[in-house]
Amino acid sequence: MLPLEVMELAAEQLTNYNGCGMSVMEMSHRSKEFEEILHSAESNLREIMNIPDNYKVLFLQGGATLQFSMVPINLLRNSKKADYIVTGAWAKKAAEEAAKFGEIRVVASSEESNFTYIPEVKREDFTTDADYVHITLNNTIYGTRYPYIPDTGTVPLVGDLSSCILSDEVDVSKFGLIYAGAQKNIGPAGVLIVIIREDLIGFAGKDTPIYLDYAIHAKNDSMYNTPPTFGIYMAGEIFKRIKATGGVSALETINRQKAKKLYDYIDGSSLYSCPVAERDRSLMNVVFVTGAEALDKKFTSEAKAAGLHNLGGHRSIGGMRASIYNAMPMEGVDALIAFMKKFETENKGSMGEK
Amino acid sequence: MLPLEVMELAAEQLTNYNGCGMSVMEMSHRSKEFEEILHSAESNLREIMNIPDNYKVLFLQGGATLQFSMVPINLLRNSKKADYIVTGAWAKKAAEEAAKFGEIRVVASSEESNFTYIPEVKREDFTTDADYVHITLNNTIYGTRYPYIPDTGTVPLVGDLSSCILSDEVDVSKFGLIYAGAQKNIGPAGVLIVIIREDLIGFAGKDTPIYLDYAIHAKNDSMYNTPPTFGIYMAGEIFKRIKATGGVSALETINRQKAKKLYDYIDGSSLYSCPVAERDRSLMNVVFVTGAEALDKKFTSEAKAAGLHNLGGHRSIGGMRASIYNAMPMEGVDALIAFMKKFETENKGSMGEK
Repeated sequence: MLPLEVMELAAEQLTNYNGCGMSVMEMSHRSKEFEEILHSAESNLREIMNIPDNYKVLFLQGGATLQFSMVPINLLRNSKKADYIVTGAWAKKAAEEAAKFGEIRVVASSEESNFTYIPEVKREDFTTDADYVHITLNNTIYGTRYPYIPDTGTVPLVGDLSSCILSDEVDVSKFGLIYAGAQKNIGPAGVLIVIIREDLIGFAGKDTPIYLDYAIHAKNDSMYNTPPTFGIYMAGEIFKRIKATGGVSALETINRQKAKKLYDYIDGSSLYSCPVAERDRSLMNVVFVTGAEALDKKFTSEAKAAGLHNLGGHRSIGGMRASIYNAMPMEGVDALIAFMKKFETENKGSMGEK
Repeated sequence: MLPLEVMELAAEQLTNYNGCGMSVMEMSHRSKEFEEILHSAESNLREIMNIPDNYKVLFLQGGATLQFSMVPINLLRNSKKADYIVTGAWAKKAAEEAAKFGEIRVVASSEESNFTYIPEVKREDFTTDADYVHITLNNTIYGTRYPYIPDTGTVPLVGDLSSCILSDEVDVSKFGLIYAGAQKNIGPAGVLIVIIREDLIGFAGKDTPIYLDYAIHAKNDSMYNTPPTFGIYMAGEIFKRIKATGGVSALETINRQKAKKLYDYIDGSSLYSCPVAERDRSLMNVVFVTGAEALDKKFTSEAKAAGLHNLGGHRSIGGMRASIYNAMPMEGVDALIAFMKKFETENKGSMGEK
């Protein structure tokens, strides 16, 4: 979901941006108008995320998938070793991809329990001379979220924040590099944000595909080649709106209220349960089951018929998943709970039981 | 430029696509609605470009820049040799990037004459065992366009069609691979189209960054990771419109008329001249000069004041350049010629002379 008012503004400006007579989609990325859009998107993001001055902000393409390669290609700069904590399918893919480029150690994994919790990893558990440590802060499929930021000492921490960026306050200075696809909490698909500490830039090998070198993008302020102009414009409008409505802390307050209401209802229900360890529960993706596969399927299909879309769990684990990203209002959560109550009453004792 | 009616449709549908209650930007790329958008975009593109069945169509990110790497990484599959014809800055960049991955020979170049013509390269000039030959069909900065498709025998021909795709009819079967960024003749920035003959897929090395492997995208119908959904939707609307308005041949007819009118005026003028060899002139980018740098600058700035934007030549060559892509109507060309005539009258004999 995207905020309706941002989309309405985009629709209004689609053929005529700010009275300049052309669409953002028609602007040259070298025009003053677009440069101002890009500059303002960056400075607003810096402000709402409180990004320190010694970090570069890059707007790239290729999604988190391309970052799975770019991170090791750029950051395996000394020992060529890196540690990965595997908390889900995406973290695992990231680790597998990195193994093409260096010596990757899975320092902890919750796969044995189907990723229902976040492992507790301490400073002494990490490889002393690792070039970086990689984590996936929020795990959409399993509904988990790190309740702590691992202390990696002087080893740079890399975080995939694709599904939680701007949903709660994150101390950027604890990371060497943060990346996040925009399509979940920010704007349209096709924009990826990298926030990288400057001292980590410039270590890609000479034979690195040029688009995969952070230094190229940093040196050219994300304009080495034509950036995804319309997506950056949309992202920038979202940043403006967050700034104007109390910043990330206000969003975090609402997100905590939304998630608490839903988890409280699930925990108190006699039909539904959440398989995730309480302290590791995601604010963005609430996973729950009835305990009977057939009943889960019935739930998802009846919910869809009632206008509540996309409640099926990921095909790899089944069950249900409610994604309550920033743009989902409390009313959406209330509507879901109302439907869950009705379904619980109608199906109590019929098939599954907690 | 984009066709106004396509943008108006996009604006109208921005908050509510086809009555489904959500924006294309909000759809999951796994939704039936988006799958239909992607499928229809591909099938319409196949139809208007007459793409043979043994070619895959991929919608990717990263622009032509990423293709500069992906082409050699995927296609240097036997001899690890490739031939490049260098007809401009982009072709040169493509060749330089490819040299990271194999033995690249510049088989012909027009750099010595500042890229004002397209070299004539014959079949016997190419490396017999090259894995491919690369050309840049239209060269935006210099206003040139291949008047012929090089005969490379059995060696696959790779064409960068970024600035001329869908502007005139191209026989896809003469190419092994075509790539084109969408931002010039199709839609918004952030979508890149690859058309690849199936027998050329599957040769990327095991340690290729996963996003850079054509086989991954082909196997997953461009859905290995989240594609740039809104950009693909816009591109699809452009394809529909081309199909509904006479196809590419109709566009070619208009584009030839537009270009002829402008070149005829320039050639007949006593102030302006076009430095490009007549048979190699681009239908998309019309380059011209007055012969005096100061007068060129005056032209560009007065044109801008008169509402004719983006007429400055590329910073590397100066002069003027009128980009008359598909969406530029004949009226735009007429307005330009009217301004040029007025400027010619006002400045005749004052500074430059042909």
